[in-house]
Amino acid sequence: MSPSAATPAYRRLSVEERRSQLLDAALTLFAHRAPEEVSLDDVAEAAGVSRPLVYRYFPGGKQQLYEAALHSAADELRHCFDEPQQGPLLPRLHRALDRYLAFVDQHDAGFSALLQGGSVVETSRTTAIVDGVRRAAADHILRHLGVREPGPRLRMTVRMWITAVEAASLIWLDEDKQPPAGELRDWLVEQFVAVLTVTAARDPQTAEIIAALARNG
Amino acid sequence: MSPSAATPAYRRLSVEERRSQLLDAALTLFAHRAPEEVSLDDVAEAAGVSRPLVYRYFPGGKQQLYEAALHSAADELRHCFDEPQQGPLLPRLHRALDRYLAFVDQHDAGFSALLQGGSVVETSRTTAIVDGVRRAAADHILRHLGVREPGPRLRMTVRMWITAVEAASLIWLDEDKQPPAGELRDWLVEQFVAVLTVTAARDPQTAEIIAALARNG
Repeated sequence: MSPSAATPAYRRLSVEERRSQLLDAALTLFAHRAPEEVSLDDVAEAAGVSRPLVYRYFPGGKQQLYEAALHSAADELRHCFDEPQQGPLLPRLHRALDRYLAFVDQHDAGFSALLQGGSVVETSRTTAIVDGVRRAAADHILRHLGVREPGPRLRMTVRMWITAVEAASLIWLDEDKQPPAGELRDWLVEQFVAVLTVTAARDPQTAEIIAALARNG
Repeated sequence: MSPSAATPAYRRLSVEERRSQLLDAALTLFAHRAPEEVSLDDVAEAAGVSRPLVYRYFPGGKQQLYEAALHSAADELRHCFDEPQQGPLLPRLHRALDRYLAFVDQHDAGFSALLQGGSVVETSRTTAIVDGVRRAAADHILRHLGVREPGPRLRMTVRMWITAVEAASLIWLDEDKQPPAGELRDWLVEQFVAVLTVTAARDPQTAEIIAALARNG
């Protein structure tokens, strides 16, 4: 073991570790302030490093750091829906929503900033990041529904519900996280089943899903 | 009658008329191209006027023209929900949604641009315009539901449905306007009743609305 590895307090961070440390610091800042109110100086101070070091890692400046932080948050958000395809469907959806709401709860204002855009550094690239998460969430849900080739009505129903869940999350943050997360989660799942049931009357593929839900939960 | 009024082809447009003509031209352009792909030259050409004249009316340039066009579209969108509070509720909602979907149909890509933002000239001001329309739509719907002081659950349900309707509109445009507008409208109304019914089990105020709907439609 080399002397430097034996004294971790003095160990130099690897490039990846340093990058991840800076992203964490930026995310924490974005979680409590709008991106336009976060400066590179703030990030440097929060990470306990110099401003030039932040620039060395993110030579594109704030826009690059903001996008990297969004990518990192988006990856985390994607993981929320990563649920084994075993057991009854509704408990899986409960677990995914619990993770999702924990993410919303933890990132708070940063979650709003992530979804709402409208910041001075908003571009079509940052919009694409969020749209990617939405698409991934829809794909996950359709896979859990056991559908290989979703028809337009089922796809539209799932995407509408995802948007409604986003809206609920933003309102929930605005309203001091009321109702409690567990109640919100149950309510959202009930809404999903309700809109699927409405679609089932117009779409045989969705009718099959509702029939399977009635059998297995 | 003055000679100039007798020859309308040569009549000078009033400031308001000219402004409205330029906004119409800009809206038509935004309806078929992303805002970042529309230049002031394009607007001048579409309106059959000179570029300096466009600048005289919109000295703030493209950003100002874009915002004014959004305001004008937002006003039009607001009118969709302007429905007399008479007769059964569901036919009122049908009529409002028919007008809304006609607006979406007519403005097409411009509607996406209006809602999705993500353009190079997106700012918190343009986001506020769209949010204003969303709030107005929620207020209209709550008024039609006969509710003076909506509780948080009812408010959240209405706002979630509005967001879901937006998502449906964007998907509808992406999917060559399928299903037909009348079918989409019925489907959206059914979803609204379904999510209200889910909320009714958790919220006495919403339960009263569902009871009234069952009595009067």
